[in-house]
Amino acid sequence: MMRFNLSCELGYDLAGDADFLLNVAVVKNAYQRVSEEEFDVEPKVPTQEYVDPQSRSRYLRLHARAGKLNLRYQATVELEHFIADPAAIAEVPVADLPAETFQFLFPSRYCESDLLARMALREFGALPPGHSRVAAICDWVKGHVEYVGGTTTSQTSAYGTATQQVGVCRDFAHLTIAFCRALNIPARYATGYAYGLDPPSDFHAYVEAYLGNRWFTFDPNQMAPRTGVVRVGTGRDAADVSFATIFGPATMSEMKIAVDLAPASDIPRHGAEALANC
Amino acid sequence: MMRFNLSCELGYDLAGDADFLLNVAVVKNAYQRVSEEEFDVEPKVPTQEYVDPQSRSRYLRLHARAGKLNLRYQATVELEHFIADPAAIAEVPVADLPAETFQFLFPSRYCESDLLARMALREFGALPPGHSRVAAICDWVKGHVEYVGGTTTSQTSAYGTATQQVGVCRDFAHLTIAFCRALNIPARYATGYAYGLDPPSDFHAYVEAYLGNRWFTFDPNQMAPRTGVVRVGTGRDAADVSFATIFGPATMSEMKIAVDLAPASDIPRHGAEALANC
Amino acid sequence: MMRFNLSCELGYDLAGDADFLLNVAVVKNAYQRVSEEEFDVEPKVPTQEYVDPQSRSRYLRLHARAGKLNLRYQATVELEHFIADPAAIAEVPVADLPAETFQFLFPSRYCESDLLARMALREFGALPPGHSRVAAICDWVKGHVEYVGGTTTSQTSAYGTATQQVGVCRDFAHLTIAFCRALNIPARYATGYAYGLDPPSDFHAYVEAYLGNRWFTFDPNQMAPRTGVVRVGTGRDAADVSFATIFGPATMSEMKIAVDLAPASDIPRHGAEALANC
Amino acid sequence: MMRFNLSCELGYDLAGDADFLLNVAVVKNAYQRVSEEEFDVEPKVPTQEYVDPQSRSRYLRLHARAGKLNLRYQATVELEHFIADPAAIAEVPVADLPAETFQFLFPSRYCESDLLARMALREFGALPPGHSRVAAICDWVKGHVEYVGGTTTSQTSAYGTATQQVGVCRDFAHLTIAFCRALNIPARYATGYAYGLDPPSDFHAYVEAYLGNRWFTFDPNQMAPRTGVVRVGTGRDAADVSFATIFGPATMSEMKIAVDLAPASDIPRHGAEALANC
Repeated sequence: MMRFNLSCELGYDLAGDADFLLNVAVVKNAYQRVSEEEFDVEPKVPTQEYVDPQSRSRYLRLHARAGKLNLRYQATVELEHFIADPAAIAEVPVADLPAETFQFLFPSRYCESDLLARMALREFGALPPGHSRVAAICDWVKGHVEYVGGTTTSQTSAYGTATQQVGVCRDFAHLTIAFCRALNIPARYATGYAYGLDPPSDFHAYVEAYLGNRWFTFDPNQMAPRTGVVRVGTGRDAADVSFATIFGPATMSEMKIAVDLAPASDIPRHGAEALANC
Repeated sequence: MMRFNLSCELGYDLAGDADFLLNVAVVKNAYQRVSEEEFDVEPKVPTQEYVDPQSRSRYLRLHARAGKLNLRYQATVELEHFIADPAAIAEVPVADLPAETFQFLFPSRYCESDLLARMALREFGALPPGHSRVAAICDWVKGHVEYVGGTTTSQTSAYGTATQQVGVCRDFAHLTIAFCRALNIPARYATGYAYGLDPPSDFHAYVEAYLGNRWFTFDPNQMAPRTGVVRVGTGRDAADVSFATIFGPATMSEMKIAVDLAPASDIPRHGAEALANC
Repeated sequence: MMRFNLSCELGYDLAGDADFLLNVAVVKNAYQRVSEEEFDVEPKVPTQEYVDPQSRSRYLRLHARAGKLNLRYQATVELEHFIADPAAIAEVPVADLPAETFQFLFPSRYCESDLLARMALREFGALPPGHSRVAAICDWVKGHVEYVGGTTTSQTSAYGTATQQVGVCRDFAHLTIAFCRALNIPARYATGYAYGLDPPSDFHAYVEAYLGNRWFTFDPNQMAPRTGVVRVGTGRDAADVSFATIFGPATMSEMKIAVDLAPASDIPRHGAEALANC
Repeated sequence: MMRFNLSCELGYDLAGDADFLLNVAVVKNAYQRVSEEEFDVEPKVPTQEYVDPQSRSRYLRLHARAGKLNLRYQATVELEHFIADPAAIAEVPVADLPAETFQFLFPSRYCESDLLARMALREFGALPPGHSRVAAICDWVKGHVEYVGGTTTSQTSAYGTATQQVGVCRDFAHLTIAFCRALNIPARYATGYAYGLDPPSDFHAYVEAYLGNRWFTFDPNQMAPRTGVVRVGTGRDAADVSFATIFGPATMSEMKIAVDLAPASDIPRHGAEALANC
């Protein structure tokens, strides 16, 4: 079992009043047990939490006045993945997919699966279906896209990444998702706190694909062990789970993410197991 | 009160087995009362209905064998809109938006509100907020985009329509939605049976924007009276509410939509009232 | 030696006056000897010929009145390619390229070599330079892009084709050109009359790459023998050598291209030789 | 008459050998008389000049070894524009355009006039033709596009600028050119040394449109007086006249452009005259 002390510090300069919709708190479920948790806002303003009934992503909303705004979230989390043998995990025929997964078959802003359908079929259509096929997509993305920070923007989407072949974890995830959807595998975008991320960055972006009867985690980026990623948000793509959607004139002045092992934790390691944490 | 007899006939040739996810049945709620309804599939196969808990859109799923497939939906619907004075309907501050509306603020596959933010602000940012601002967006779209059948494809999105200024009702709706979202007004894509559509076409696409405390209908296309549109599906954009999402080798051989006045119905007329039917 | 009887018939309905810039006449040079040639316009209007000094492409300009317009070009052409051993043909270092070839290194409307640079380097960067590398690019394009008529439009460009992997000869050519330019190989778009085109279509689009000290022809589409293609226009991409650029309200009512063997001609065959005809 | 002392200093770090194609030297013609000129390269390498026969743009080519490379160009230039009354300058009917201008009617990499045709017609189609129409396009671009440094990249094109409405002088020029071409006005991209550029930047990008019987200069950006701009390069768009096209692993370490009034010069002023310098 893994135990992490997590924290996220965000600082903003507000030229006027602004509304924030934050997605920085970890999902609470049987696999992610939060033993301690704190969310501070400076100056103090009321906050309101919304838990999405499907994804259980937690959104914090607040309205802040012009001036400085500092946000700090910290938590201690016990993380235990559902672990399975990849060879035993099948794709689900469309006829048997739960209705809630439909939306994750459709194209979205940053995952234009409709435009990438032929490419997906050509590259992966003949592979045996199952967990291994999604893993093969991840390997392909890792092998074809170069990780270079600062080369892409918040407007970059899978369609561009397929051609331009450069990006960061967000782009790797979007392309993987688009390919999965093009093959009728429900896939969604996930963000989380990743232990041992190298290079250390901010929130990590990865992928969940619906296989067997649950959402399995995949990481086409492979820069951190999957067993060390604590899930925060899941959505159709990055548009849905930005750590901070801001409505108003705000400039970020600080961002600091820390993920440390808590006492008595196992150490996350890279591995090929099938993992799920919901 | 309006009363309509609706029908939709779809014919397909299947070169192999295929799964269908149909969104042709009308939403049932206090404003849309279905007195009779029938769904036939030829050859007979089991169908499964799923009602989206939020939108109440109804999806029919079925698995069909290679060969011919004919689908026929028909219904008699009483339609009564919630009617209000546009001048009395305000935009909702982000801080007060219901959490379920958040997703309709974010960009989606065919409504790239992130890319259209400056254009939206320049054109509509200074207008007084409220129902009239969304109506002004509709007028702008009507005035700047030419209706020409066959000029766009299922891959056309708001970003392209903003520049190329040509399209069909689907494109008018996507562009309107993108502008609304860029102004922090939740907006969603709606499809329906439209009485008096000129030119007669297939399902009509239009827009719902969240104002006051409900989803009001708007029609940038203005080719049919809004009071004569029976709602079928709502989603983030056309990707979510295709009348037929098909997984397998199917070719459409027939499509026929009919919307007739039933006895004792009022006659839908164009008007400037604020309307909602959910 | 090949001898062809060529013809091209074009019919238009003009709703008003229109200017035409036609690029249907074959290039005249030492490799393409025109023994007979005729250009008819009905109704009679004055025409003006312009020969581009670099490409020797021939443009016919005319101004036509509203009504019907019929154009007919026919020619008898002896075609003899410069033939060489592909293994003997090297790429030219940038430092030694003739200045006139520079423009064919730069990205153009339908050949976004800047956006495809990484893909080109990853796929072809490690191949030994020379005629064989361009041939390898052609094979890759043939292998990755599916030929399906009617799937692309006059707005489709190499960037889209790289991802969507479907198109016609025009699209095959654009993608090949973009890859060549990304590797610093000057490449240009060529149109011509192709003997034995299967399926028979209109003008054929192919590629010329500057290697050794001349422009060698390549055909990523491979639907007609290269020895049977009579060159008409060359330019940066399809924008430069449309068979008819029309300024005014014209609708095409007829298009007929014929390419027949003249007496005493050899029969064009597929082969792997390096070919040039300028 | 204007007299300027110009200079351009460029520094590069080369991780390996690289070829440079420089377009930093001013055009020499009757309107731009160069009294002194010097081009230094450190370390010394042979350079080769190529003057494009049509545009008279001057390209310097050199091959440099790994290590540091410093380039310095300086010149003293007398600049005298052809000046005319805008009201007297007509557009040229397509039938009368010189053949060399055709290529500037076609879409290019960064000026997708084909995609912007409807927008151009809607906005400018009804304006009286002539110099004033191109000036109106410039005003529209200035009014709709916000100047913000760092918002666009070398991949940004007119199509994007039309929608995203932000950019730098390069983007203003591309959009203006695309609109002109869509209206059948030949237009090309120009770069130059601009006196009094505010904010001071690097080379200035502006527009030349073919009207009357010559190329008139336009500046949609309006950040420097047109009478104080010394022409360097002209081409179909920025792809053709980059100040440095580099083939090899080079990183720019320095860029300094200076444009000073020489003794006895008039002072450039903003004005509405029609200007040409070729």
